[in-house]
Amino acid sequence: MTVRELLTEMKDTSEVIIDLAYASLMYNSSTMAEKVRGLEDDMDDLKFATRYKVLLSSRTREDARQLSGILEVASAADRISDAASDIVSLLRFPPEKRPFITEMLSEADEKIRMIKISSDSSMVGNTIGRLQIEASTGCKIIAIKNRRGWTYDPEDEMKLRANDVIIVRGTDDGADLLVEYAAGRKEWEFEEIVPDDVIEDEAEEDLQNEEELSEEIRGEGDEE
Amino acid sequence: MTVRELLTEMKDTSEVIIDLAYASLMYNSSTMAEKVRGLEDDMDDLKFATRYKVLLSSRTREDARQLSGILEVASAADRISDAASDIVSLLRFPPEKRPFITEMLSEADEKIRMIKISSDSSMVGNTIGRLQIEASTGCKIIAIKNRRGWTYDPEDEMKLRANDVIIVRGTDDGADLLVEYAAGRKEWEFEEIVPDDVIEDEAEEDLQNEEELSEEIRGEGDEE
Repeated sequence: MTVRELLTEMKDTSEVIIDLAYASLMYNSSTMAEKVRGLEDDMDDLKFATRYKVLLSSRTREDARQLSGILEVASAADRISDAASDIVSLLRFPPEKRPFITEMLSEADEKIRMIKISSDSSMVGNTIGRLQIEASTGCKIIAIKNRRGWTYDPEDEMKLRANDVIIVRGTDDGADLLVEYAAGRKEWEFEEIVPDDVIEDEAEEDLQNEEELSEEIRGEGDEE
Repeated sequence: MTVRELLTEMKDTSEVIIDLAYASLMYNSSTMAEKVRGLEDDMDDLKFATRYKVLLSSRTREDARQLSGILEVASAADRISDAASDIVSLLRFPPEKRPFITEMLSEADEKIRMIKISSDSSMVGNTIGRLQIEASTGCKIIAIKNRRGWTYDPEDEMKLRANDVIIVRGTDDGADLLVEYAAGRKEWEFEEIVPDDVIEDEAEEDLQNEEELSEEIRGEGDEE
């Protein structure tokens, strides 16, 4: 992996590991907690790999400046995952001794919910990527349990089957919507597939707009 | 605030502060970085307030056990916000000395995007809550710039106006969808408003299902 890939992996992991940590407390799951500890170990490996690559490529004073920034981001991501590890350590208390966790999670902006996919659901047989679950409901799938057991932070290619159980993180509105789809009470609305070249053109235009916007914001917005 | 409220506030802040920290680097914004530092100070205050309340209410050995758990979660949330503070410290480098940040953020699972609301957009004149932006597109609004300046982590009651600029965090698919709505190329689909009692009934049923599910998962799932 390149340094850039290592850093991206660390950022993604630092986000999913916190969600998983809270989910493990919410559902009192020691297998999820195990996964959190595994991810924390992975983060340490990623941090060492990043350090090693960074030190190897530091030649000049100029390099050193830029590379020290990379180490700072890597260490921030690592500290976030350490915090996740502290959170799961609360599993040593039985659930009735940590009611504050359930209360906190049920009042936070982003909720954690467990949802079963009914055999009547139009989601069945489709991949997470095809459904665009996060874009359509705002719910990010933290974990899936199917016949093969648990998968954490599943890939877009994973297919949903009847009776799969998913653990998601999202707003109340989003999770309520997803429950309707998962129960088969509401038909999934698939995005029409637009030819790729149209998307490319619009995306390019939007990116250009975004650059101009960002210049504009930097110029005036940042002075107030 | 009760201990529970303090803890919920700390959790929510620990999430938004990381998004804001990355956004400040992405858009080279010192005002956003200022806000991150302000939130970090708020977190310290919240942590001290939590400690104080916890110490006041600890009477028995039993109390002490449960309350030490609360302090652990509070300290995890605080450490996450410290990491955010480290991330914004990279603003001391000019953008061309930290290209790895933009690369990392453009390849991460969750992207940060800046989007302008066109006067043609059907979002104009509606509140964030009415639009259910996160549930409909998976994009969480990190910040809004309107005539009054910047608002960070805006409330659901905030109304969107033509020419407002929003900074969001979401997947590529979700942000692409939001761009379509914001540009007025796609009409916003408002959820029909369902009478409250129907929602209550279904919600209660779903919660019951979730509890059974969670028992089931605990029983069999956790043994594998």
